[in-house]
Amino acid sequence: MVFNHPEMSKPFLEQLNWRHAEKNFDAEKTLEDAQLNAILEATRMSPSSFGIQPYHVYVVSDASVKTKLRAAAYDQAQFTDASCLLVFASRTDHMKRVDQYFEYASDGDAETREKLKGYEDMMRGFIQNMPQEAWKPWADRQTYIALGFALAAAAELEVQSCPMEGFDTKQFDEILGLPEHMKSVVVLSLGYSDGSPARSKVRFPEDDLFTHV
Amino acid sequence: MVFNHPEMSKPFLEQLNWRHAEKNFDAEKTLEDAQLNAILEATRMSPSSFGIQPYHVYVVSDASVKTKLRAAAYDQAQFTDASCLLVFASRTDHMKRVDQYFEYASDGDAETREKLKGYEDMMRGFIQNMPQEAWKPWADRQTYIALGFALAAAAELEVQSCPMEGFDTKQFDEILGLPEHMKSVVVLSLGYSDGSPARSKVRFPEDDLFTHV
Repeated sequence: MVFNHPEMSKPFLEQLNWRHAEKNFDAEKTLEDAQLNAILEATRMSPSSFGIQPYHVYVVSDASVKTKLRAAAYDQAQFTDASCLLVFASRTDHMKRVDQYFEYASDGDAETREKLKGYEDMMRGFIQNMPQEAWKPWADRQTYIALGFALAAAAELEVQSCPMEGFDTKQFDEILGLPEHMKSVVVLSLGYSDGSPARSKVRFPEDDLFTHV
Repeated sequence: MVFNHPEMSKPFLEQLNWRHAEKNFDAEKTLEDAQLNAILEATRMSPSSFGIQPYHVYVVSDASVKTKLRAAAYDQAQFTDASCLLVFASRTDHMKRVDQYFEYASDGDAETREKLKGYEDMMRGFIQNMPQEAWKPWADRQTYIALGFALAAAAELEVQSCPMEGFDTKQFDEILGLPEHMKSVVVLSLGYSDGSPARSKVRFPEDDLFTHV
């Protein structure tokens, strides 16, 4: 994938009030490749604990697959009307992921990898010390940082989006043929609004959310 | 808090390669209020499931508190050298939060609230049907979207940041005096680099992270 930077109208911080969870996508409108690629690039570049990026994203544009997913998601129209669905799956093959990380970090060079051994051992120690039942929630949390970056990128590009958790994750895993170590956790639908007015935005005030110390 | 939009150099999508987990903050440099406020505003405006924002952020600038937190975080220098620490705590008082949400959404007006009753009942039903042990992980995930938005905002402002999970959450909760229904989960340190070179960035390639369907 070649990353072509699309023309941008306004920075992310100027898009905070406009963006919202889009409920009414125009099923006829399709994202441009440059927009989708920019959103995926923001996802790819998002930070994660130790940088191990314990997730995989299914980028669903195929109409028949979207129809199957909708049936496993309480028939919510966004699943077929959105131009594209990013189905985020979190991974639990952390030790294999560490190995892959250092393969990339050393560019496959044994000497470079040896120099990174202290860091690798520390990372493995951290994961081994984590109780097994914490492995998936930890991966889920890292996945949601990537979701946040995808949402921020979509807002900057003035692409409408809607993050969605209301679906049968097991059915999604089956439909997409996920391997055992990946489980779908959240979907980001992307596209263009059909022009219906959005529900007005509610956000908690500063004094509810922040305490200055 | 009045939100003053600071001057911005470049949009978020142009900052993806530059941003990194800063390890070496300059302890003498302080964030400008406009920068901190913009990062907090991005946090506040971030989406969450049903918009209930199940989190609270402790914005720590006080030097003595930062010293105590550092001692509960394996003596990592970022905890004192960063200009400011955002300690994200997730909440588990979801039913109370729903009530507050509809108070804000209706602006305290009983008639407006009555009109939203169907939506409120649906939200309560969803939460009641969630097993109790899922309440905190669910809130944690929403919190990480807000973390993602704060990270994106910091990158856009060319403020250095480092997300950190390596600390004793129980000690943090005690030091900050968190109520029972809030638990610290992740910290975002913010400030300026001391100029030390950053570790080179490793990200998994597109074909590892994405499957197009």
